[in-house]
Amino acid sequence: MSSSICIVGIGLMGASFAMALKAKKYPARLIGVSRSEETKFKALDRGIVDDATTDLLNGAKGADVIVLCTPVRLIVEQIEQLSDFYKMSDTARSPIITDMGSTKTEIVNAMNMLPECVFAVGSHPMCGKETAGIDVAEANLYEGATWILSRTKRTNDEVFEKIKSLAEIVGAKTREIDAERHDALLAFASHLPYAVSSAMVNATDHFGLSNPDVWQTMAGGFRDTSRVAASDVTMWLDILLTNRDEILSATRDFQFQVDQFTAMLERKDEAGLKSFLESAAQARRVKFGR
Amino acid sequence: MSSSICIVGIGLMGASFAMALKAKKYPARLIGVSRSEETKFKALDRGIVDDATTDLLNGAKGADVIVLCTPVRLIVEQIEQLSDFYKMSDTARSPIITDMGSTKTEIVNAMNMLPECVFAVGSHPMCGKETAGIDVAEANLYEGATWILSRTKRTNDEVFEKIKSLAEIVGAKTREIDAERHDALLAFASHLPYAVSSAMVNATDHFGLSNPDVWQTMAGGFRDTSRVAASDVTMWLDILLTNRDEILSATRDFQFQVDQFTAMLERKDEAGLKSFLESAAQARRVKFGR
Repeated sequence: MSSSICIVGIGLMGASFAMALKAKKYPARLIGVSRSEETKFKALDRGIVDDATTDLLNGAKGADVIVLCTPVRLIVEQIEQLSDFYKMSDTARSPIITDMGSTKTEIVNAMNMLPECVFAVGSHPMCGKETAGIDVAEANLYEGATWILSRTKRTNDEVFEKIKSLAEIVGAKTREIDAERHDALLAFASHLPYAVSSAMVNATDHFGLSNPDVWQTMAGGFRDTSRVAASDVTMWLDILLTNRDEILSATRDFQFQVDQFTAMLERKDEAGLKSFLESAAQARRVKFGR
Repeated sequence: MSSSICIVGIGLMGASFAMALKAKKYPARLIGVSRSEETKFKALDRGIVDDATTDLLNGAKGADVIVLCTPVRLIVEQIEQLSDFYKMSDTARSPIITDMGSTKTEIVNAMNMLPECVFAVGSHPMCGKETAGIDVAEANLYEGATWILSRTKRTNDEVFEKIKSLAEIVGAKTREIDAERHDALLAFASHLPYAVSSAMVNATDHFGLSNPDVWQTMAGGFRDTSRVAASDVTMWLDILLTNRDEILSATRDFQFQVDQFTAMLERKDEAGLKSFLESAAQARRVKFGR
């Protein structure tokens, strides 16, 4: 029964996961790993974890499951550190490493290099907030969220089911998608919207330097379209740099659409614009549908 | 006391305005004009207006205030029809024409051509919904909304205050901005987000033709950034075609930002990307701030 789960990174995602497991009375000892002493003490004080440390290997040793909840490139580094650690240590039981990174190819590639005694499943719970950190964590963050799982060379069925059940316990709906496919789909479903939103805000911000009253004439369209641009830059920088090719392909497709739009508007092609706008409205209403 | 207000177009904006005036017990007889018999009868049945007709001139004659709540290019046509009507008729009192169009230059230009016996104020209440029509109208649509007023050659202070007070009675906060300035600001604050959102949805829809599972991996970023693309195409087509130059200038600035972004991502310019994303996050959080 009494297993132990090491949660690395006690920010929004990690702390919410720990709080959700506690809320569901999941029978495991939770160990938190944070680089910051302040977060470590907060997590302990608030009873979010049972034990906490600032040292990855100290927290991970002896854990049955290690959940890496840091930005993508740090996850890759931590997998490499853990890999070196397990290669040199005589571990009695085989731990399972999983993660919460928003891109999967580089993470799963690193997981594939783990020693045979270690299991690993790539994972991406598709939820979050515009704000980051332990202070905005909440036990119901994962309720109803889609949680994608990607098998690695270090995944067997038992290990896969174990991680799947952890996701389901905190209320998420799991889907299995392989890492490269995940990154190609998410380039459109998530990374393109962020790029587009940030570029739009920067264009408006630049215009606003000589027209500051633009910020007083904002309505719902700008508010919604710009919302994701306020998200955590550190997390996003890692996403962009670890899914570069797919994102560049998505932005090329997007720029083609913007070029079509501006060409039609320039030549006052009303029929063309109507069909362009109707196809977007239809896709948003029916295919996205929320 | 007992004045009469003619509301032309009993859709979301017009019907909500009538409902708001009724809710505030504003002492005026409300006459609705709708092209559709069905909407006319709904408006009467529901007590949204006191009288209704499908004929613009029939509804407008004798009214003290005429509020044009149709798409922008129809508003311009209706101003021209009213102009011809008043030129030929011997009107005892001077009516005030106003509107709810989302672009102002073409409308104010048409208002400037009205005969001297007619007053006019351009107006743009900045609120709306993704859905259109009388069935989604609500009495509190204008509560807290920004409502822009633009003077015309047919505006004097008394007439301006009259329309301003109507906006304030239904709960809006008014701002005076001249028509050309309005259109330059709104190109960034409203029209660019719509263009960007529609182009993004079309890029994803095109990708989705061979990758339909992209619609199953959507999260909050796509939802928010794509929301405005679902809006009423008829209304938007008129906005785009009556503010073409300003919108083309905004999309050029936007495309420059997207080009900067992709160039930095291509050459893995982490410092450049970081500064690009941080400036967008900062502008969204602080300058937009909602």
